[in-house]
Amino acid sequence: MKVSIIGASGYTGIELVRILLNHKHVEIDKVVSNSNKGTKFSELFPNVRNIFDKEFIGTDNLETDLKESEYIFLAVPHKAAMEYVPTLLKMGKKIIDLSADFRLKDKDIYEKWYNEKHIASEYLEEAVYGIPELNREKIKNARLIANPGCYPTTIILGLAPLLKNNLIDTKMIISDSKSGVSGAGKKCNTTTHFSETNENIKAYGIASHRHTPEIEEQLSYLANEDIYINFTPHLIPMTRGMLSTIYVNLKENIDIKEIYDLYNNFYKNEKFVRIIENGAVETKNVRGTNYIDISIIKDERTNRLIVLSAIDNLTKGASGQAVQNFNIMSNNYEMEGLNFISPLP
Amino acid sequence: MKVSIIGASGYTGIELVRILLNHKHVEIDKVVSNSNKGTKFSELFPNVRNIFDKEFIGTDNLETDLKESEYIFLAVPHKAAMEYVPTLLKMGKKIIDLSADFRLKDKDIYEKWYNEKHIASEYLEEAVYGIPELNREKIKNARLIANPGCYPTTIILGLAPLLKNNLIDTKMIISDSKSGVSGAGKKCNTTTHFSETNENIKAYGIASHRHTPEIEEQLSYLANEDIYINFTPHLIPMTRGMLSTIYVNLKENIDIKEIYDLYNNFYKNEKFVRIIENGAVETKNVRGTNYIDISIIKDERTNRLIVLSAIDNLTKGASGQAVQNFNIMSNNYEMEGLNFISPLP
Amino acid sequence: MKVSIIGASGYTGIELVRILLNHKHVEIDKVVSNSNKGTKFSELFPNVRNIFDKEFIGTDNLETDLKESEYIFLAVPHKAAMEYVPTLLKMGKKIIDLSADFRLKDKDIYEKWYNEKHIASEYLEEAVYGIPELNREKIKNARLIANPGCYPTTIILGLAPLLKNNLIDTKMIISDSKSGVSGAGKKCNTTTHFSETNENIKAYGIASHRHTPEIEEQLSYLANEDIYINFTPHLIPMTRGMLSTIYVNLKENIDIKEIYDLYNNFYKNEKFVRIIENGAVETKNVRGTNYIDISIIKDERTNRLIVLSAIDNLTKGASGQAVQNFNIMSNNYEMEGLNFISPLP
Amino acid sequence: MKVSIIGASGYTGIELVRILLNHKHVEIDKVVSNSNKGTKFSELFPNVRNIFDKEFIGTDNLETDLKESEYIFLAVPHKAAMEYVPTLLKMGKKIIDLSADFRLKDKDIYEKWYNEKHIASEYLEEAVYGIPELNREKIKNARLIANPGCYPTTIILGLAPLLKNNLIDTKMIISDSKSGVSGAGKKCNTTTHFSETNENIKAYGIASHRHTPEIEEQLSYLANEDIYINFTPHLIPMTRGMLSTIYVNLKENIDIKEIYDLYNNFYKNEKFVRIIENGAVETKNVRGTNYIDISIIKDERTNRLIVLSAIDNLTKGASGQAVQNFNIMSNNYEMEGLNFISPLP
Repeated sequence: MKVSIIGASGYTGIELVRILLNHKHVEIDKVVSNSNKGTKFSELFPNVRNIFDKEFIGTDNLETDLKESEYIFLAVPHKAAMEYVPTLLKMGKKIIDLSADFRLKDKDIYEKWYNEKHIASEYLEEAVYGIPELNREKIKNARLIANPGCYPTTIILGLAPLLKNNLIDTKMIISDSKSGVSGAGKKCNTTTHFSETNENIKAYGIASHRHTPEIEEQLSYLANEDIYINFTPHLIPMTRGMLSTIYVNLKENIDIKEIYDLYNNFYKNEKFVRIIENGAVETKNVRGTNYIDISIIKDERTNRLIVLSAIDNLTKGASGQAVQNFNIMSNNYEMEGLNFISPLP
Repeated sequence: MKVSIIGASGYTGIELVRILLNHKHVEIDKVVSNSNKGTKFSELFPNVRNIFDKEFIGTDNLETDLKESEYIFLAVPHKAAMEYVPTLLKMGKKIIDLSADFRLKDKDIYEKWYNEKHIASEYLEEAVYGIPELNREKIKNARLIANPGCYPTTIILGLAPLLKNNLIDTKMIISDSKSGVSGAGKKCNTTTHFSETNENIKAYGIASHRHTPEIEEQLSYLANEDIYINFTPHLIPMTRGMLSTIYVNLKENIDIKEIYDLYNNFYKNEKFVRIIENGAVETKNVRGTNYIDISIIKDERTNRLIVLSAIDNLTKGASGQAVQNFNIMSNNYEMEGLNFISPLP
Repeated sequence: MKVSIIGASGYTGIELVRILLNHKHVEIDKVVSNSNKGTKFSELFPNVRNIFDKEFIGTDNLETDLKESEYIFLAVPHKAAMEYVPTLLKMGKKIIDLSADFRLKDKDIYEKWYNEKHIASEYLEEAVYGIPELNREKIKNARLIANPGCYPTTIILGLAPLLKNNLIDTKMIISDSKSGVSGAGKKCNTTTHFSETNENIKAYGIASHRHTPEIEEQLSYLANEDIYINFTPHLIPMTRGMLSTIYVNLKENIDIKEIYDLYNNFYKNEKFVRIIENGAVETKNVRGTNYIDISIIKDERTNRLIVLSAIDNLTKGASGQAVQNFNIMSNNYEMEGLNFISPLP
Repeated sequence: MKVSIIGASGYTGIELVRILLNHKHVEIDKVVSNSNKGTKFSELFPNVRNIFDKEFIGTDNLETDLKESEYIFLAVPHKAAMEYVPTLLKMGKKIIDLSADFRLKDKDIYEKWYNEKHIASEYLEEAVYGIPELNREKIKNARLIANPGCYPTTIILGLAPLLKNNLIDTKMIISDSKSGVSGAGKKCNTTTHFSETNENIKAYGIASHRHTPEIEEQLSYLANEDIYINFTPHLIPMTRGMLSTIYVNLKENIDIKEIYDLYNNFYKNEKFVRIIENGAVETKNVRGTNYIDISIIKDERTNRLIVLSAIDNLTKGASGQAVQNFNIMSNNYEMEGLNFISPLP
């Protein structure tokens, strides 16, 4: 089965290539990047030297060049994605879009938070939010997957069992989230500068990060009511990894054992969700993998739960989840290509 | 003026030495450590080679050895401190105790959280909690200072203006705190092992960290009512630095400008407190210094404040604050020896 | 095919497990560690939670317990290995020993550098030094593989083409080598302490590191004369990765293009050796993989070559090379289980 | 005494400010940066918030603006420096130039290695190479100091006692040097990108780095003959710190004790040079300070010395040495403002 990647020159691009090269039933047909046209992929990403030396192509003849690719991964930034989607759909392609362009159902909310006019809003309704643990059936038949953001993945999967079962106060949901630097992408700026970020921690996008409406929309579906949250992302001095520490009020006093039973049951068929005892969640255990590790602690003195949820922001938080969605769409085994174990230490 | 340090072989010990060597009116008389007796201080801490080469002494003849030291810094672990305090007080010394032994007024709470019998509880009442911005007058005349914990310093100073002015819901105070590894001390274990901690983040001591009752006691004084909080410390891959992200509910809707006026006014005479606009708090700006940088963001959609507060855990969070307390006790200029600027980058 | 790992609780142990779980034709039969007997492997190494949850066994009934294991990986420290080898060989096992115990042919040199009596020296002659690129034929029929050290792997493979072709002055070989911290193992000490190692670089074992005689012995075989080198290892603040910068004098003036032709030809059938142009070797490109990336620069002004050679110290430098040796011994495809691509970034 | 800094917006600029704010007899008059004109210095560098809030000025009216500044620190890149120097000298200023523009006596060598035409070569002869330990007398009376590069500082001071005493083979000098990322400056590129540099080591500028002729010129003065060296810089994942590991051949067999006597004697009056036993040099001990720590190991088997020399690249390697030069020129105590102790850990 042939697939292509548009926007393959960023970090989600190389992560897609790493995963797809490990996939038994996939051949990477084309890697597309106008700015790197003619360059060997392995020249830009020397980790795949001698392994994947194809040249990048440009977008001049996509119709011809992508003829044999049934599935297209869009690893371009938001705004660029919505420029490709209509054309690709008309070409009969199935799309896994890693950008934010089709994650929000409401065009106005998109335009407000992203400060861009949405030029392909007619596809918003059709797009399926690609979080397999919650939307697997819809994903199977989708033509257009809106692959979730990294922060939303941690928070949505972290809270789904509680919200679905109506156990928490929906007026007080706080997610204090921490991300490695690779989430900021390959572009260079103060945030990604080693000397600025090493030996440092800061919050950013406080009460204003663009993932906020995405998280809220999905939590609202789960709770069946409108939810507004506090979401504070932080940048910490590591390359990969994301941890959300989520604070919620229990509506009633429930034993922590029951909470664990609930989570274990909710995710019992999910291969990539691991429920961990006693808060012992660490990002190192999921690095380079598609796992999400979740733990729940109850603070008996305040009747509050602290949910911890950890992923690799580039794998389960982006390219890994994209391939998981692709596997579901294409009737592959859902874990195919995704059998990575974090290299410890 | 001569001072001595008991327990000078740990990280707060070397940090005290670094600061006191920068102090114009102090001479370090003795550095005490039984396990390093006879060793040159600079052999253990080669950063002060050629600068401070005194040998460690043991505790065999403290009465004689400390005769000339009017002030004693106790940089020993909890439990050890309460063994020294009665003797030292009887010797007429003034003590700045960096351990937790005299921070809690209630012996029972101490014994419950620290799982140790308190053997010097007769001094608990006299001990002054050494947070200069709130207790300066008491510190001036104290014989025994309980130097605050690092986490408590960030949270107490972060919330003092709000609690003093009765502006927030005292039933919902959540501090999500992040610390560099040096807070775990010089001892070796899984937490301090480079390969386990580098490229990793984890929470620890969730809903059970020993700083919890210390924070709660001090917040309760400020609010004049009993306060229970959620406190979640995290370990992040850097050596020095601590950031607390504190979530509170405003009782009424107050403009953020008013909040800033309140903070600026509350701390207007404080040389070590810097109020920062727009959440732009980063630990790198306070590294190696006695500053605490505080910022406040209002999430208009939830009427909640997010208070960010950053220190160097070993300086304002330990040895720097200890010297600040010493300066107040000894009628030195409060900033003397503490004029450090973070070396950027 | 069943294999077992003795000493599976260290970093080379978990790395073996990670690799062997990725191997299509292998089942990990037993993981042996007396100190962890009865503990789940995934409790100690939570990266394999839900993936490999077997319990550690002790060494009480090895004969019975290892009955079905044809191959044994010894991931114990030096000295311990030589205690197991005779017994295991008598049980008919084939052994890949990751320790140093059988790497040196000369018992006296071992005893001098390791300061231990060698108690199984009768097997020294039989043991095959397991560097597949040079000793593949011997490895095929070996019962006992002495798996190379990490530093030696970088230097031996870095210099083999030059020495085999008699191109360099054997009196001046200098390797300045740099290692991540994981090479120091899981034990806690000053060297592995985060706060001591982060933001720091130091040399260690200068002119006295135990890998020196191992390197010299293998280089001497290649050159067919006795070789003594300068070898200076350094510890740098990263977890995995090793780079050797090797300085040699060309005997005659040879064009750098010829040198590259020589290297490319020498390693033309080697899947794990990548020859890189222009010195562009970086450890990140081999992290978690079995590749060794080698580059050569000629300093025209001094007629000296600078050879750069990079590996992951735990993979090609230990457990990956061990599985490569196992594959050769067991007639598996040499890359089986070792198709890892470094997760970039 | 008033001084000004031109090019104050880079890392050597903020480091100059940090040091000069610690200097008892200096007032920073102007900080000059066209691109930041009108911005508060502390907005760009929030570590000095509330401490140094002056605004940057542009270069429009330098003659007037710098009227009161007797000394000017040039913290601009090479090429820019030579544009300022003639004008400033005509204005009667004394200049400490941190760039490379006046370090090489030979205009042709400058133009070849820096690929720029030298437009102020008439000042090359007058310029004094500002390494106080070797050129103190000349510095006293200089108008124009060429402040040394960071790598050259480690190598020149590391080898001076050996070369001055004619003890080593000048045909084989190899420096394998390692630098933290801050040496690459504040500009953003692949080298300074956190995700590219963290958990990675690479060599760069092999046999071609621009510091090479600077090192060679100074070593040649010391040896009184033309010297060519091998110099290989490496980038390692830390912010500050530089270590050179230098390999030389002893001409005759000399006892290591004699070597230490030689070094101790050579540097006996130097406050910033610390001679360390047994190779125990670590960059953490000099971080943020003006010290250079030097150690020498003899490899008895090869009669070769390994000299280790460590500095903070931004302090002794740039701005600290600049202030040391300024102190000498201005008859201040040479350590004034430079009494920093590395904050350990």
